[in-house]
Amino acid sequence: MTRSDRKPIIKNEEKLLENAVSPKDRKARELALRALAKALEASDPRGIVYSKVSVDDSTLRIGDLKLDLSKFRNLYVIGGGKASGAMAEALERVLGERITGGIVNVPKGTEELYCTNRIVLHGASHPVPDEDGVSGTRKMLELAEKAGEEDLIICLISGGGSSLMPQPRNGVSLEDKKEITNDLLRCGATINEINAVRKHISDFKGGWLAKRAYPATVVSLLLSDVVGDPLDVIASGPTVPDTSTFNDAISILKKYQIWEKAPESIKRLLLDGLKGIEPETPKEGDEAFKKVRNLVIGSNRIACMAAKEELARNGLNTLFLTSYMEGEAREIGTFLGSIIREILHSGNPLSTPCAVILGGETTVTVIGNGKGGRNQELALAASLKIRGVEGGVLASVNTDGVDGPTDAAGAIVDGSTITRAEKAGLDPIRYLMNNDSYSFFSELGDLIMTGPTGTNVTDITVLVVV
Amino acid sequence: MTRSDRKPIIKNEEKLLENAVSPKDRKARELALRALAKALEASDPRGIVYSKVSVDDSTLRIGDLKLDLSKFRNLYVIGGGKASGAMAEALERVLGERITGGIVNVPKGTEELYCTNRIVLHGASHPVPDEDGVSGTRKMLELAEKAGEEDLIICLISGGGSSLMPQPRNGVSLEDKKEITNDLLRCGATINEINAVRKHISDFKGGWLAKRAYPATVVSLLLSDVVGDPLDVIASGPTVPDTSTFNDAISILKKYQIWEKAPESIKRLLLDGLKGIEPETPKEGDEAFKKVRNLVIGSNRIACMAAKEELARNGLNTLFLTSYMEGEAREIGTFLGSIIREILHSGNPLSTPCAVILGGETTVTVIGNGKGGRNQELALAASLKIRGVEGGVLASVNTDGVDGPTDAAGAIVDGSTITRAEKAGLDPIRYLMNNDSYSFFSELGDLIMTGPTGTNVTDITVLVVV
Repeated sequence: MTRSDRKPIIKNEEKLLENAVSPKDRKARELALRALAKALEASDPRGIVYSKVSVDDSTLRIGDLKLDLSKFRNLYVIGGGKASGAMAEALERVLGERITGGIVNVPKGTEELYCTNRIVLHGASHPVPDEDGVSGTRKMLELAEKAGEEDLIICLISGGGSSLMPQPRNGVSLEDKKEITNDLLRCGATINEINAVRKHISDFKGGWLAKRAYPATVVSLLLSDVVGDPLDVIASGPTVPDTSTFNDAISILKKYQIWEKAPESIKRLLLDGLKGIEPETPKEGDEAFKKVRNLVIGSNRIACMAAKEELARNGLNTLFLTSYMEGEAREIGTFLGSIIREILHSGNPLSTPCAVILGGETTVTVIGNGKGGRNQELALAASLKIRGVEGGVLASVNTDGVDGPTDAAGAIVDGSTITRAEKAGLDPIRYLMNNDSYSFFSELGDLIMTGPTGTNVTDITVLVVV
Repeated sequence: MTRSDRKPIIKNEEKLLENAVSPKDRKARELALRALAKALEASDPRGIVYSKVSVDDSTLRIGDLKLDLSKFRNLYVIGGGKASGAMAEALERVLGERITGGIVNVPKGTEELYCTNRIVLHGASHPVPDEDGVSGTRKMLELAEKAGEEDLIICLISGGGSSLMPQPRNGVSLEDKKEITNDLLRCGATINEINAVRKHISDFKGGWLAKRAYPATVVSLLLSDVVGDPLDVIASGPTVPDTSTFNDAISILKKYQIWEKAPESIKRLLLDGLKGIEPETPKEGDEAFKKVRNLVIGSNRIACMAAKEELARNGLNTLFLTSYMEGEAREIGTFLGSIIREILHSGNPLSTPCAVILGGETTVTVIGNGKGGRNQELALAASLKIRGVEGGVLASVNTDGVDGPTDAAGAIVDGSTITRAEKAGLDPIRYLMNNDSYSFFSELGDLIMTGPTGTNVTDITVLVVV
């Protein structure tokens, strides 16, 4: 099945090719952009569902998983996330009337973008959760609890699912939950730490959905927006065993000195948990998980592999270096520039023509007051490092099409970027120091424009050397 | 020819192996340390000369270069640098009485460490140049100018050569030169920028030595301590065409707002140069360079390749990623940790057992008041990223054996480093935030100890996954 709207994914591809100052640079740009387009295609939520899910007679296939639908009485679809509306639409097209019903929480205002008949698309707030999110999630839990041993529940989970599917536990208000989340974000807690706390004040996250759905069969289709695809982190793992404890949650709040001022309801709940009055989140070994399959059907790694395959098909030696890329964007950009230089100098790690593919999510420590995104800043730093080379290109995008607070997905650079900038009177270092990569690439015309893609498998970076 | 003192290069290897908590980690540690030892061996100045330079009858071979010594009347040896004393000793052992004479500037107090008869080892100050450096360099220039068409000059250039071979130009005092260099260092000028200025206030750097030696034949043997081995940067390129101009030098001083307060002698010299009263540094195409061969006989890349070969010999899949590694140490460490994770998760970029080798020189932005070095800090950041994995090791050293202001060459980490630290009551994040990697690894016993190696081809990092 293919979509009818076959518009180019990278809208300004022609312009980006015209910016090349040599045929080699043009060729490298073309290959890099084509690879990124393939990566974006492979992370499109509808496309993923169409390519992974099929039904033949009564056999439902999802990747390698096979299920005999005739054995199930009802098939419910629940879930939430920024891409889950598109996933729901595609799933309905594949399964049609086999779906009994269901509800999926999507960002408010996007309900109308997708066409579903059996699955209700319920608008909820993102990234700050609201009561609509709570009411939708409650309906999911009701469905899950109603479902019995002969029922199948398919969960469609994607990035943003955590805030779109809020379900504060026992006495904790949504306001309390928001307050503690904000405090944790502010003081620089890691996503794992934030999740350990969130899971212990939720009735849905941290495996609770799976526990409540038991003994129904649960298949979670996950579109991962988290580096490394840790199942328990994507949307805070509603169908995944939790590894953290009440004790961890309390320690984390104490570590960041949030404990004292935390809402009373949360302190009481966590202390009750510590005493064993409140039950722990479901853990590995819980029988509920025997009925659960968690399948990552879209992820940064899958997108990277699509880019790699496209580049290999074009005759390049390819290397997929990591999908766990993390660190300060400008430092990683400098480092990646160094790989291009080495390839050109010594043919290591690959001989030309070749490409290196990376995925992940870098960070930007804002020191200036310019406009930019992590992919653009990474590219700017790399351009300084590869100044003067020929046939070496780096292109980097956020797969959601929106890099930082800009309308660009990312940027593309080559060995002539800095020279072109200087000719245009731009001081690259000044733009970098001011976190103003967007203005820099805007002037050069080297922003990569896709528009919002409706998906998010974090960032993809491609180096091409021809 | 081999050295008689075959002591282990990594002195505490046994202890580092004992620190492994699993056989897999021990195996990975062993492979990584063995590779680093090979890299250090390949950057030993004496070892390099012995392996690259040989004489057979009257044929002198230096790598691929062949020279008929019978065609030369005199063979002079000049040069300078931290490793040039050891290079001179080795060269005398190979060439013996074929050497007419020469002078090599070495760090004060190290003259006695090397045994030479024909080449005078002349002590000079490093890293701050002094008049002894000037007088030694003047003797080199006298030799070079005395040498005629039938003479051969071998230059032994290594890291530190810039400050060990000072020769301020026309009216500029050594004090003036030091002042401007310090100002440039303080305001964060790049090494290329500093060199552009230094070359234009020197009678030796920036190709001047080659120009003065003309029409003698000049062979420069370079032990590179600069990322990427740019010939004109190593010791400020005394035998290499200069690409910078008087105009560049002035622009750089203005860019960093040093111009106004620069010593009068320097301003006058640079302005005279701009007017054409003072001659430009020798440029590409100058006939003097037709008689010059610059040969990099030791470098980070050569050391990386030695590590790679050792690992391949041990049956590992290997990847030499870059010898241009640059960037903030902790960010690069995080990034390299991400490669280990990807290897373990998906077998990309290599399937196990495998190794990734990198070289270069990261930087540390000091924010705390602890003790550490860039290799130790890189390793500490990586250990946080690979927490919990098994069979994945990162080891990183400064090839000169001295990482930062410490007595360690670097450090080694694996998936259990953080657990071991926490058990010992150490908070890794706190040590990282305080730039206190030395204390951290000192407590754990995971510092790599070599003692000063007498060479410097910057840093080598090895990742091993078994």
